[in-house]
Order: sequence, then structure tokens, then C-alpha cells
Amino acid sequence: MTEPTWNPSLRAVATGSPLVHCLTNIVVAGFTANVLLALGASPAMVENAEEAGPFARVAGAVLVNLGTLSGEREAAMRAAAVGAHSAARPWVLDPVAVGALEHRTILAHELLNHRPAIIRGNASEIASLAGVSGAAGRGVDSRVGSAAAVGPAQELARASGAVVAVSGAVDYVTDGQRVLEIPGGDILMTRVTGVGCALGAVMAAILAVVPDPLQAAQDASAILKEAGSRAALPPLPGPGTYAVRLLDSLGTLAREASS
Amino acid sequence: MTEPTWNPSLRAVATGSPLVHCLTNIVVAGFTANVLLALGASPAMVENAEEAGPFARVAGAVLVNLGTLSGEREAAMRAAAVGAHSAARPWVLDPVAVGALEHRTILAHELLNHRPAIIRGNASEIASLAGVSGAAGRGVDSRVGSAAAVGPAQELARASGAVVAVSGAVDYVTDGQRVLEIPGGDILMTRVTGVGCALGAVMAAILAVVPDPLQAAQDASAILKEAGSRAALPPLPGPGTYAVRLLDSLGTLAREASS
Amino acid sequence: MTEPTWNPSLRAVATGSPLVHCLTNIVVAGFTANVLLALGASPAMVENAEEAGPFARVAGAVLVNLGTLSGEREAAMRAAAVGAHSAARPWVLDPVAVGALEHRTILAHELLNHRPAIIRGNASEIASLAGVSGAAGRGVDSRVGSAAAVGPAQELARASGAVVAVSGAVDYVTDGQRVLEIPGGDILMTRVTGVGCALGAVMAAILAVVPDPLQAAQDASAILKEAGSRAALPPLPGPGTYAVRLLDSLGTLAREASS
Repeated sequence: MTEPTWNPSLRAVATGSPLVHCLTNIVVAGFTANVLLALGASPAMVENAEEAGPFARVAGAVLVNLGTLSGEREAAMRAAAVGAHSAARPWVLDPVAVGALEHRTILAHELLNHRPAIIRGNASEIASLAGVSGAAGRGVDSRVGSAAAVGPAQELARASGAVVAVSGAVDYVTDGQRVLEIPGGDILMTRVTGVGCALGAVMAAILAVVPDPLQAAQDASAILKEAGSRAALPPLPGPGTYAVRLLDSLGTLAREASS
Repeated sequence: MTEPTWNPSLRAVATGSPLVHCLTNIVVAGFTANVLLALGASPAMVENAEEAGPFARVAGAVLVNLGTLSGEREAAMRAAAVGAHSAARPWVLDPVAVGALEHRTILAHELLNHRPAIIRGNASEIASLAGVSGAAGRGVDSRVGSAAAVGPAQELARASGAVVAVSGAVDYVTDGQRVLEIPGGDILMTRVTGVGCALGAVMAAILAVVPDPLQAAQDASAILKEAGSRAALPPLPGPGTYAVRLLDSLGTLAREASS
Repeated sequence: MTEPTWNPSLRAVATGSPLVHCLTNIVVAGFTANVLLALGASPAMVENAEEAGPFARVAGAVLVNLGTLSGEREAAMRAAAVGAHSAARPWVLDPVAVGALEHRTILAHELLNHRPAIIRGNASEIASLAGVSGAAGRGVDSRVGSAAAVGPAQELARASGAVVAVSGAVDYVTDGQRVLEIPGGDILMTRVTGVGCALGAVMAAILAVVPDPLQAAQDASAILKEAGSRAALPPLPGPGTYAVRLLDSLGTLAREASS
């Protein structure tokens, strides 16, 4: 029996236990940490202006998620992006709600100058960041399907030099040339907060140990999709249980990869 | 068999998937989002000074919960309240720990000028906000039963123009004239963080799709009480499982309403 | 059958329901509150500069956890430490990632002037705070086993006047003279975010009702270890379920102590 394609990435994370420096939002910080721990990575949330830069320079990889901004968190994000870039640490940008809100759209464009390795968002966010007018979603929701953002994602990848990942019922990952499709998962992944945000964190974790951003983005998507499918197996009492099972399934996938 | 009285509100939320802009605290942000998602609403937490005002103007409804304040979060709350009021978006004030701490008591009174549609708190908070001296609780706990705050709640409703909801073993909801009583629920609802805070968020979600604040407050209370009762069915291993089941039960109620 | 040694502490918490003022981080705030609620304590997170000082003066005990700092949270921590000390309220310092990051190392040393009753950390954090060079961990992880930090912990206890607790596969607690060893628990406690942080909160909760910091630190460690062991009983689906069971087990321990 052939093993899943993502197993080498999972093994590398479990073995390397990379330090993943997360600048993320107050809604999903705990869930994100638990997702990373389930895979054997080592999450650390450092989001003050004084420490984010130096910490990014020693982390395995960095996640910058724009969910709940504040003046200080923005300063920390800039410092982390600069620090990561200058120390050649890969970092992931999750442009939450970009397009829907002007302030963070400007911030996201500024952060692009510091060369994220991966940009992960939903279709609205990616299309907005790519400059498609009228693509703005509302908050964290996308108004368009992920397939519609594949073209914009390719443009954004070419313009930014980053791999771009579009999340949806089907995930797409592109380096501007190749477009990889990751189906699977379950609609319930949208009924639990933080799954998309956690996906960005998993991309960062893999990126810390697998140098190829396209591979890292693809494997992270496939891992989350697989865990999301397993967690949905009936009987399922509801979304509370689903969130718990998602973490359990990630732990199982990590164990299966290493056994 | 007659359907539960709150089903039209649940259906309206599931159908409309209202965008609920939550300015809430770091303790319950994740749980609040999961409660809203379980009902089919669309939560978005935006709490920076630059974005909270514009976002409130486009949200379906806004929640302002004073749990964990900061200078910037306060500025965002003011901007959100002003934005919501001026754009005729209904908003809910949750005056966490008002009365126990002077700083937030002043803030809460200031926010009242921007006309919340619903004020939801425990007995101590409501009595304090109504100006009853010596009503101050300690932190998020109330020192008095909810019934004792019905009079103050009516006064506060008349003075503020808001519907006032008092949470406790029995919930009370009043527009200053009518007083509605919502019994039920379970003592375990006080042993899991964020249930009261989530109740304010559910009120906001319903308010976005049901124009009558008294109806919205009553239905939200009844929905939480019903979910809280179902989650307590034995055998119950403890409060960890209870929190999970609460979300599951909310998902079940939403499904039952829509089937 | 003799009852567990920690039962008097659990009963005192359940009976007194002490108000535990937590200045903690965005990752674990919700889990920490749920841990305290499971034991019957009354958590309240107040972390703004204006309120943290006054609130510390009326709380049963205070927790200062350096996880996710911000300028304002630091000001609040200083105010809380000063307020607690001047009002003779016991407080617990959790020096998260001290040693790994200079800024917070300076902050932690400054906070020591306000006389915490207990300092709780992992081996790297305790050794760094004790002045052992080269002890710095990376983020929240320790690079050394807890036994290696017993000597530094004793030095730190003597220098600071605090009881010092080192968390690890075996926990150690010392007042500088006596060294108590608390074995048990499960490796999964490190695969769920916030267990260490919650331990500091439980120490604060007990400290509010049991005046002896060595006893409070020892009992809190033993309670968490016991809950952690019970939660690991097979079959265990994974880390998501483990976190839920940890809360359930704490609730069970509290009930067993009071029956």
C-alpha cells in the first residue's frame, strides 16, 4: 500500500518539531496552537513590537495572520516580516478580510514587500490582493468559489514571488505556473472557527522543514482536508465534537506518518 | 406538534447568515465564534480603531462586550457604536463587570449614548448600570439573583431605550414595560467560560434578521437555555464535555428549525 | 481509604470560589478560565492599564503570565503586581519564554521586585530567571529536563523570596530549602496548549484560600498531574479529546474532594 503523499512532510514536522512563530488573532490563537501541537510542531505566539522581529529571526517559520489587528500587532507584524525576510526564514501571509477593509488591504500590500513564501486566503481575499476589483468579501467569508480565484492567484504568485493558496471546497495552490488542486474535506470545516487560519499555520510548520513552498502548501492543504474528512464520519453530534475530532484526526495522521 | 417559539429566529439566522461584528474579549472570542457558526451566522471580530467603525456600518449587527479592555479596543468600541448607530445597524452592549470597576462603568455609560438595541448582563451588571448603589459584583460574577434586577432592568430599559436582558438561573428580558421570563438551562452553563458572552452574540445575530429587540433577546435566551439543558443530559463526564455538547446542541437546534 | 493530599486545597477552592485575576495570554485565556471554573474558582481577566491595579487589590489572587505581551498588557502587569503586593494579595509569576527573549527577561526581573508568592515555569525559564547562562529555551519549550533546574530553582527561591515551581515530566517545587517532587501526569499534557499556563492559574486559585505557597504549588501540581493521568486513559482518540477530558477530570477531582 502506498503511503499518502503528504507523509514525508508530516514526518519532517514530527521529527524537527519546528518552532512556528505565529502572529495571529484572538479568535483562533488557541486552536492554532493545538493544531500545531497535534502535528508535533512547536507553536509560539509573540506579537509585541519589541520581540516579534528578533523572534522571527530565530523561528523555523513565521505566520502573519491579519485577523484581529491592533496598532501594536501591526508593528509586530511588520517587524516579524522584516526579520524573517532578512534572516531567510520562510513566512506565510494570511490576509484575513483583505478587500473588505481598506486599512488591512494597505497593510497586506506593504507586507508583500517582505516576500512571504506563501500567501493563503479564501477566494475573495486572494482576488482582492491580486487587484481584482469588486472581489471584496465580507469579513472572513468569501463570496466567490475558490475556482474563480485561480487566475488571480496565479497573477498574485507571479507578481509577489510567493506561492498562493486559495481555500474553498476545493483548495488550489499555485506558484504562478503550475496549479495544483486539492479536493476533499467537509463543509463542516467552515462551521468551526479557525480551520482556515490553522491551515496557514500548518503551511508555516511544513515550510520550516520542507524548503519547497509549493510542496508545503499542497501538503498542508491535503493534511487538513484529510483530517476534515475523517472528523466528519458519522455519527457526528455536531460542530463542537467536530472541532475536537479535527484535532484528534491530525494527531492520528501524524502518528500514521511516523509509524 | 407545535414547533418551538424560537424557530423562526433560528431559521432567519440560518437563511440570512448575518455578519455579526463582535468586539469581544480574549477569553471567549473563539467560543463566541463557534456559537455563531453553529447557528449559521457569520462572525467577524474586528477590534482595531481604524476598522471597527467602518465595519460596524456594513455588519448585520454588532456586539460590544467589555470583557478585556485595552485603550485601542475602547477606541474601537466607541467607533463601532457610533458607526452602528449612524448606519442604523442594531448593536448589543454586554457590560461585563460594570459596577465592579469604575473605568468600564464610565465607558459603559458613555456607550449608552449611542443607543444599543439590547443590553445584556448579569444582575449585578444591570443593577449597577441602572444606578443601583451597592450592586457591584466581582468580575464577571453576580452577587445577586436575576429576579432582584428586574426592577432596575426596567428602569434601565426606559432610560436607555434599549431592551434589557438579565441572565441568571432564570433570564429576564424587558423593554421597560413588558417583562418576559425565560427559565431553563443548567447550572453548568456557569461552569464553562463564555456562555453569557455568547448569549449576547446570539442576540446580535438574531437582531440582524429579526427587527424586534425584545423578540431577539427572548429567543436568544430561550435557544441558549434549551441548548444548555440538552447538553446536561446524563451521563455527563464533566465541564469539558459540556462545552462541546453545548455547541453540538446549538447545531442540532438550528438543524431542527430548518428541517 | 485515605483521601488524596490535595483534597483540602480543592475543597477550599470549591467552597471559597476565589476570584482569580488573570493577566494571561491570548492563546490560553479561554482554557485557563475553563480550568479555574472546573475547580469552582472564579476567573476574571482584566488586563488594561487603568483597571489591573485596582482589580488586583480586591482579587483573591493574581496570575501574571508573560505569554503574549503588549505595551498596555505590560503596564497592566506592573500595576497588578504593585497592587497585589501593596494589598497583600498573593500573586503568581509565569515567566513564559524568559531567557529566549531579552525584552521579557528584563520585565520578569522587574516584576520580581513586587514579590510574587510563586514563580512557575519550565526548566529553561526558571534557570534563565535564576541567572544560569545558556539556559534559554525557544519560546515556550524547555530544552532541559526539570531535574536540571532544581538547583537554579532553589537559588531563585532564596533570592526572590518566592516558592519556585519547575514543570516537566516530574514537577519540582521549592522554597529554597525543601524540594518537593511531584511525578505523574502524561506526555500528552505537552501536546495541548495551555496546560502549563493553567497550572500557574490553579496555583493562584489555591493560594487565594491556602496561605502556604509551598503547599499551594505542590497541590496544584499534583492536581494537574492527576487530571492529566486520568485524561490519558485508553482508548484515547487524540489530543482534541485529551483537552476535553482534562477539564472533565478536573471537575471530577473537585467533586470527589467535596463529597
